[in-house]
Amino acid sequence: MAVALTILADPRDHSITRTLSAPTGTTLLKAAHDGGIDVTATCGGRGRCTSCRIKFVAGTIPPPTLADEVQLGDDLVREGYRLACQCRLEEPLTVQLAPPLDEQAFQILGAGPSVARTAGVVMDSGVAKQVVKVTVPHDEHHQTSDLEQLLAAIGREPADVGPSVLLGLPTALRDDGGLVTVTTFGRRILAVERGDTALMKFGLAVDVGTTSVVTTLLELESGEQLASVSSLNPQAVFGGDLMSRIAFAQFNPVNLRKLTTRILGLLNQHIEQVCREAGVLPKWVYKVVVVGNTCMHHLVLGIDPSHVGLAPYAPVMRHALVTTARELHLKTAPEAQVCFLPIVAGFVGADAVAVALATRMDAGDRLRCAVDIGTNGEVVLGSRARLLACSAPAGPALEGAQIRHGMRGALGAIDRVTVDNDVHVHTIGEAAALGICGSGLIDLLAGLLDAGVIDPTGLIQVDQRDALPGKLRDRVVMRGEERQVIVLRPGDHGAGREIVLTQDDVRQVQLAKGAIASGVIMLLHVAGLAPDDLDELMLAGGFGNYISIASALRIGLIPPVSPAKVRYVGNAASLGAQLCLVSEAERAHAAEVARAIEHVSLAAHPDFEQIFVDAMNFPAR
Amino acid sequence: MAVALTILADPRDHSITRTLSAPTGTTLLKAAHDGGIDVTATCGGRGRCTSCRIKFVAGTIPPPTLADEVQLGDDLVREGYRLACQCRLEEPLTVQLAPPLDEQAFQILGAGPSVARTAGVVMDSGVAKQVVKVTVPHDEHHQTSDLEQLLAAIGREPADVGPSVLLGLPTALRDDGGLVTVTTFGRRILAVERGDTALMKFGLAVDVGTTSVVTTLLELESGEQLASVSSLNPQAVFGGDLMSRIAFAQFNPVNLRKLTTRILGLLNQHIEQVCREAGVLPKWVYKVVVVGNTCMHHLVLGIDPSHVGLAPYAPVMRHALVTTARELHLKTAPEAQVCFLPIVAGFVGADAVAVALATRMDAGDRLRCAVDIGTNGEVVLGSRARLLACSAPAGPALEGAQIRHGMRGALGAIDRVTVDNDVHVHTIGEAAALGICGSGLIDLLAGLLDAGVIDPTGLIQVDQRDALPGKLRDRVVMRGEERQVIVLRPGDHGAGREIVLTQDDVRQVQLAKGAIASGVIMLLHVAGLAPDDLDELMLAGGFGNYISIASALRIGLIPPVSPAKVRYVGNAASLGAQLCLVSEAERAHAAEVARAIEHVSLAAHPDFEQIFVDAMNFPAR
Repeated sequence: MAVALTILADPRDHSITRTLSAPTGTTLLKAAHDGGIDVTATCGGRGRCTSCRIKFVAGTIPPPTLADEVQLGDDLVREGYRLACQCRLEEPLTVQLAPPLDEQAFQILGAGPSVARTAGVVMDSGVAKQVVKVTVPHDEHHQTSDLEQLLAAIGREPADVGPSVLLGLPTALRDDGGLVTVTTFGRRILAVERGDTALMKFGLAVDVGTTSVVTTLLELESGEQLASVSSLNPQAVFGGDLMSRIAFAQFNPVNLRKLTTRILGLLNQHIEQVCREAGVLPKWVYKVVVVGNTCMHHLVLGIDPSHVGLAPYAPVMRHALVTTARELHLKTAPEAQVCFLPIVAGFVGADAVAVALATRMDAGDRLRCAVDIGTNGEVVLGSRARLLACSAPAGPALEGAQIRHGMRGALGAIDRVTVDNDVHVHTIGEAAALGICGSGLIDLLAGLLDAGVIDPTGLIQVDQRDALPGKLRDRVVMRGEERQVIVLRPGDHGAGREIVLTQDDVRQVQLAKGAIASGVIMLLHVAGLAPDDLDELMLAGGFGNYISIASALRIGLIPPVSPAKVRYVGNAASLGAQLCLVSEAERAHAAEVARAIEHVSLAAHPDFEQIFVDAMNFPAR
Repeated sequence: MAVALTILADPRDHSITRTLSAPTGTTLLKAAHDGGIDVTATCGGRGRCTSCRIKFVAGTIPPPTLADEVQLGDDLVREGYRLACQCRLEEPLTVQLAPPLDEQAFQILGAGPSVARTAGVVMDSGVAKQVVKVTVPHDEHHQTSDLEQLLAAIGREPADVGPSVLLGLPTALRDDGGLVTVTTFGRRILAVERGDTALMKFGLAVDVGTTSVVTTLLELESGEQLASVSSLNPQAVFGGDLMSRIAFAQFNPVNLRKLTTRILGLLNQHIEQVCREAGVLPKWVYKVVVVGNTCMHHLVLGIDPSHVGLAPYAPVMRHALVTTARELHLKTAPEAQVCFLPIVAGFVGADAVAVALATRMDAGDRLRCAVDIGTNGEVVLGSRARLLACSAPAGPALEGAQIRHGMRGALGAIDRVTVDNDVHVHTIGEAAALGICGSGLIDLLAGLLDAGVIDPTGLIQVDQRDALPGKLRDRVVMRGEERQVIVLRPGDHGAGREIVLTQDDVRQVQLAKGAIASGVIMLLHVAGLAPDDLDELMLAGGFGNYISIASALRIGLIPPVSPAKVRYVGNAASLGAQLCLVSEAERAHAAEVARAIEHVSLAAHPDFEQIFVDAMNFPAR
């Protein structure tokens, strides 16, 4: 007997809802495939992955199979998710296709606070739309042109016209009886669209990090976030940190080109993805604000960063630059204004400016410090009176890279760890453990320090392990020459393999947290202040929201301050970009902030080396 | 005994003058080759081609050999040309290398009068070069960037910088100890080159015709023409005349793209060719001026010309537009300013404006008429008081296209014809006859009219041929349904095949000359004037120089005026472009000329049809 199966379009897909008919007992995966619907099944429909999962919308949800429970975890199973390869069609059902879980997890990382909740923002993106009726030329003797008729209708000059506007002009003017919508940015005419598209006004905030790239789509009138996507920076295959990426491109135009096309290619994927998710046509995106460190900024623009990597680390340019999507081959409206926020120095980029802007650091009298945690971390310290900034080259360890069993904060990553007489873990999505991400690493080290498994120099205490409680003791091992802590054994928490923390992993985290902590301490030192003088310490960054403040203080990622003074501010760099997207006043102010920031070159400071070495150690407790 | 041979650089080659020493009796070709000078010898030095020809500058010119006479013809021999493979070194000589004849023939078509000889031109291209020493950043604590150091040195703002300038800036500033040459155009910074390149300042004048495209390279300071190249417009495969080309692109973006990439591809070939010939690096070309009819203008820019081909034939834009080479993917300096002259109407383009500008039609009180002969011919009539213009869609017949044995004015084309009791021809380069070009066609028809072979309606008088002299009579034949005049039989004048004029060829010329003549007459008619009122009638166009004025008057290509009033002005459209290239004042004036020109729409005029039909006939004599 045949039963109906209705498959809803994924909100990210916009394909039309389809209703199929399939024999009872068919798996939903097979029914979909037979009906020509492309449901991904990475493992071939054997219940070994999550790619075919669907969510029940109508009909009886079948009890979960073992595979459902293992792959999807309790939370998703409770929410009505099942693997399409596991459940069979017994009655009419309506299900929804879902995006891959790991991508979803990525997007949580990207989402940040809303611009609408930021103090003092006046919505004024600079992008304006005007619906106008244009009389097309209709008399051979009247000397005119399509463009002149348009310009006369809106009172503008030929010099205002973006060149690509001309390409489709004759059609736009004639398709709807001369009714067109003209989009402007200042005096510049960005687009002429047939008919009335006045409500369609969107923009993108792009945060290009060394490791992660976050693109957020906003409705420009309201500032509402419509979609956000985060991906690994695809340049990473050419080098995980900035210096190795600069070395790759140094005096090598072909490699430089590779880095630029990689990142522009990803931005175009992002544009397509966020627009599809939000049901927005890319041609309705008229403004883009880009932030990133100096090297990423240069690479997006195709500017040679060779000398950013050589003393005195001078950027090629620092001013706020506006170009067009057309120039960068971005697939928004061709004349969309792509605004790069200004730069402070070779290693204090537009991202630091965006963080300072978003956190209003220059607005009050309180002494505040923003720590943007990332592969190329940056620290900004100060108040209305003075702003100081430095770079904190943490490397990618806190983003889970260059760690034996490290991973990004995606599905299956160990993101929370507690240590008592044993090690207890939590994974993102409660999924089977795949590895350990930054916040998990910080928790783990904090717990191991408290338990005495690691001493303040970072050494794993293999020789003193007999003093540890039994379960914990068994996790501390010496394998060959390598000291290890076994975090999970195969099968624990669904782990398909042993997950360990090595002595070298500890060293990587020490380098990373040492860089960040010494950055904060150095800025305080230069300003003649101490940690106690801080009124607020803000943790920013894509994963700032996931770090335990107690753990961060325990390992000395941040200097010793009262936990009450520490605040999460999320992805403040992206938020700063969003502010400049929805408000030209904010974008103008960003230039003032950039000018106000004094760059402190740590490496050149005589006291830095000792402070960095001290910061590498863990606090004694 | 060794004798000195001095070989002068071709003015189109700019290679250094070389003096060699070779044994007496050596052919000049062998002496040159032994001395490492690359003289082309297509036939291998056997006197069978003209590629190795040289011109004697100093020393006794040897008597011509038979090969000299056959290959070079009387004119060139008289001018001191010889084949290098034929003459031997007997005394110290100075000779000049010459470009290949067939290229020369093309280039004669392209080459026009020099801008330096045009009245009232002040050289001021707008392109300026400044050599400056820039201090690169050298202190980590000093907050600056490469660009800021540059801008401080020359007193400019970031907004002045062309985006591609940034790409190579760090290298340019450091390669020569900070000595760079900055190229500007108005406030815009076009290029920053390492070292001192102040003398390298070049520009291109481009005349994009429906059938022919002419590109001329000029030194901007002096206005000297360094090289010129002419090619068939490669769009012609998609339609010979404007209307068929518009039809091809109409509402078809893929075909539009094809037309645009074809012409831009050719322009890039031209850029490479003229730069190579003149020994100029393409990156030293900073300004380009483009003229062309409205459709060609739109197609170069990628603008949809669909409505240029539909009543009321409105152009999409008419203003003088400046874009960059980068935008058009032209391989000059990326920021080179590409200036399109303004347009008057859908069929009176920037080429007509350039012709009016170059001929100074708006300057005096004399009534003058410029006839730009081309596939899409244009006629401008007037004086300081008033300027009228119309299009004269002649079709490609006068450029040798769509004629049975027609060809362009290249090597081997019959360019001169006289008819007495027989038909006598001359070919370009005195080479073996390959076909007949426009000037030959006009001569031929004039002669055949005088001889009574063709009557005023254009009919080839096959039935009355017995009244003709014997030799002429035998050339007038009826083959099947087709009336023909045999111009050359196989073997005559080296022709490899029979070359004939068909009845249809005559009709094509009638349509072409009717369009041009009726254009002139109509403008006079609209102005309330008669041909006798004309003070001057100027023939312009790539092949204007080759038309016999007597023949042109005889066939009625131009209205009946005193031959003394008719003047050749060469490729005035290209000259107008060159004027705007070397002088910004001329470019500004072009906009005034465009505004001053009144467009007369012929087809919409009630008297046009009768005037056109009359103009199709040949004058009765």
